[in-house]
Amino acid sequence: MERLPGFRDFYPEPLPSQDVWSADTRNHIFDAWRSVARRYGFREYDGPPLEPLELYTTKSGEEIVRQLYNFSDKGDRAVALRPEMTPTLVRMVAAHGRNYKKPIKWFALPQLFRYERQQRGRLHEHFQFNADIFGETDPAADAELIALLIDSLRALKLTAADFVIRLSSRNAWHEFFQHGVRSAANGIEQEYEFYQIIDKLEREDPGQSDSKLKGLGFSLVAVNEFIAAAKPTAELEVILDNLAARGLAEFVEIDYNVIRGLAYYTGAVFEAFDKKGEFRAIAGGGRYDSLVKLISGGKVELPGLGFGMGDVVLTELLKERRLLPALNNPLQAFCLIEDEALRLASLKLIQELRDAGLTVDYSFVPTKPDKQFKRALELNAAFTLKLERTSAGDFALKVKNLKTREEKVMDTGSVSAFLLAGK
Amino acid sequence: MERLPGFRDFYPEPLPSQDVWSADTRNHIFDAWRSVARRYGFREYDGPPLEPLELYTTKSGEEIVRQLYNFSDKGDRAVALRPEMTPTLVRMVAAHGRNYKKPIKWFALPQLFRYERQQRGRLHEHFQFNADIFGETDPAADAELIALLIDSLRALKLTAADFVIRLSSRNAWHEFFQHGVRSAANGIEQEYEFYQIIDKLEREDPGQSDSKLKGLGFSLVAVNEFIAAAKPTAELEVILDNLAARGLAEFVEIDYNVIRGLAYYTGAVFEAFDKKGEFRAIAGGGRYDSLVKLISGGKVELPGLGFGMGDVVLTELLKERRLLPALNNPLQAFCLIEDEALRLASLKLIQELRDAGLTVDYSFVPTKPDKQFKRALELNAAFTLKLERTSAGDFALKVKNLKTREEKVMDTGSVSAFLLAGK
Repeated sequence: MERLPGFRDFYPEPLPSQDVWSADTRNHIFDAWRSVARRYGFREYDGPPLEPLELYTTKSGEEIVRQLYNFSDKGDRAVALRPEMTPTLVRMVAAHGRNYKKPIKWFALPQLFRYERQQRGRLHEHFQFNADIFGETDPAADAELIALLIDSLRALKLTAADFVIRLSSRNAWHEFFQHGVRSAANGIEQEYEFYQIIDKLEREDPGQSDSKLKGLGFSLVAVNEFIAAAKPTAELEVILDNLAARGLAEFVEIDYNVIRGLAYYTGAVFEAFDKKGEFRAIAGGGRYDSLVKLISGGKVELPGLGFGMGDVVLTELLKERRLLPALNNPLQAFCLIEDEALRLASLKLIQELRDAGLTVDYSFVPTKPDKQFKRALELNAAFTLKLERTSAGDFALKVKNLKTREEKVMDTGSVSAFLLAGK
Repeated sequence: MERLPGFRDFYPEPLPSQDVWSADTRNHIFDAWRSVARRYGFREYDGPPLEPLELYTTKSGEEIVRQLYNFSDKGDRAVALRPEMTPTLVRMVAAHGRNYKKPIKWFALPQLFRYERQQRGRLHEHFQFNADIFGETDPAADAELIALLIDSLRALKLTAADFVIRLSSRNAWHEFFQHGVRSAANGIEQEYEFYQIIDKLEREDPGQSDSKLKGLGFSLVAVNEFIAAAKPTAELEVILDNLAARGLAEFVEIDYNVIRGLAYYTGAVFEAFDKKGEFRAIAGGGRYDSLVKLISGGKVELPGLGFGMGDVVLTELLKERRLLPALNNPLQAFCLIEDEALRLASLKLIQELRDAGLTVDYSFVPTKPDKQFKRALELNAAFTLKLERTSAGDFALKVKNLKTREEKVMDTGSVSAFLLAGK
């Protein structure tokens, strides 16, 4: 039986096939995301992977439904597997945000699902690092969020040579649009349509973009001039100064090509890209100061901002840059049991070592000494341990370093401290 | 907008409402599960939360469908949210198990989904610690698995006074059944039906059980005598001796009331219960030596055994026993910015400390000193830091221990080592 197309199996390394993903790499990335978020004082949350369908149509319109795993449950509720985390987060913050002191700094590592029928070979799920801040309108919060994004990539050993944050502003584009429509035939209701054209500029034929822009009373020339000038707004200046103070200036550049596809952004927006331009965006986010009000049906007003970073593009980038370490969960010790009369005594020793926090393995059944030793090497054990009966009738413990092949005799009481020191 | 009934929101502590769950407690439990599994040399895997429906009907029959979140996806595939991990695991092992040296020792922490229409108030999802071993028929593997179960509960500070593993054997019940049917009107095909009656003994009216048993040619008296005798089979003796050698004898007892509901168990079976009998089973598992063959359509034969432990009953038990620590992700330092001219220099310091791995926070915008200090206390900071300009024109750093209220002046280069030491 096969797994569904577009879904992934995660296996322990070394991987048995090109067709599967590494559970160890996933944990490596999750650990980096978690530890950097915590250093920044972000707290973890999670919500249900299944939500009312309405949660997504409210924010993104009915059009999103064709991209969702949605169905009617056995209680006839219209439900969907979450395609993004922000609606769940905003629902949670609208429900209980008043009980938390502001600013709220939260993160999550949800699995997200999208049904994209047309795009064969594209995955239908990914994991995403989501970090959000609520309750602060000052661009100092935007800078904190972008610094977190930069540092979570740096924690995976990516450098300024590998990636850049392209920083832009919906406010800047809003002014540009406002200025344009004053002299144009069309009205303010085309603003989101205008943003969608800008969002596609880099992927679309210039002639097509130009004719679409002309339809709204703009020209591609004017748009391109605005992008080329890249004149930071006051809010972007603050963000840049803030990041420069942290020593992170080299990771950011103003780039008005970035505008973000979603309707709900209201201020600074940004995307992280690999510098060689080989991959899709690594991460993206921005400010959404009206979204809590929208999702809560007007009951709660709270400014917000956040980003999402998926595991798929990131894993591809880390692989390409050879930044994924071999992750084989090495054993600290493998216990050789060559004399079956000592099996129960060996189990006692193994239990004591595991109780002390050490990673220890052994052969379940009587096995030839050379096969046991081979197994220890396969499992990347740092040491082998072997109990032997002494002539005095008690135990001697032989401890062998598998790198140096040095062997010494120890008493069982002191071996755990010795192994913990990793000597 | 509300979340779906039977699903959980996980918030950071302190919790804002009785109605939500703690993301911190969840991580605390996950960390314990993961670290004990790794000590035992188990490797992590994961699979898709959405699988072909057929994966579950093959193993459990069509009857299971009414307990599933199942639907047709937009490609008209019959799919289901996973209700348990074993079918996914067995599918993965059947596909690539030959590439791993035996025994295979794997674990996962999946979220699982069940639609149970009748039982209001019951959750529709939970997280489950799954640990399995493949490729070893010897009861030494059963003992290793049960030891892992015991130690993962001990890691959460539960003791032999809190829980017990009730150990039983499908083989013992098989013999009992075989012996019984020899003289009975009914045949061997009733064996699973017989197991189902035994599985319900503790929850069902004795008269009803008796009449059902009589229908198969058995009597409740004979069954109860067999249970009361609790005579361990040879395989159970080996398991008990093995666990005793590890010093874990007090955590296990033979109890033939346990038989496990699922059809596919073939050997030792077990369940973990709280000793006061206040909760449903904490965990359960056993041997399933024929399941890989069944799921792989006869292509792969590999003995297997495993257990599952859910997060819901466990969390309730830990809460009741007051074994859940306060989990508020305390800050190592809060940086006070009382002089706005020093904001950028403070950001530089904060960045350096976070780069060193420290958890540090601060106020985004100009804030009165007493409010900043209050915020530091709210966030459980161990220390406050404050940059001050010296008369010589450079910086002095004041470091205050919030427990002792002791303050000292340090240079910025040595503060991270000082804070890491947690002094």
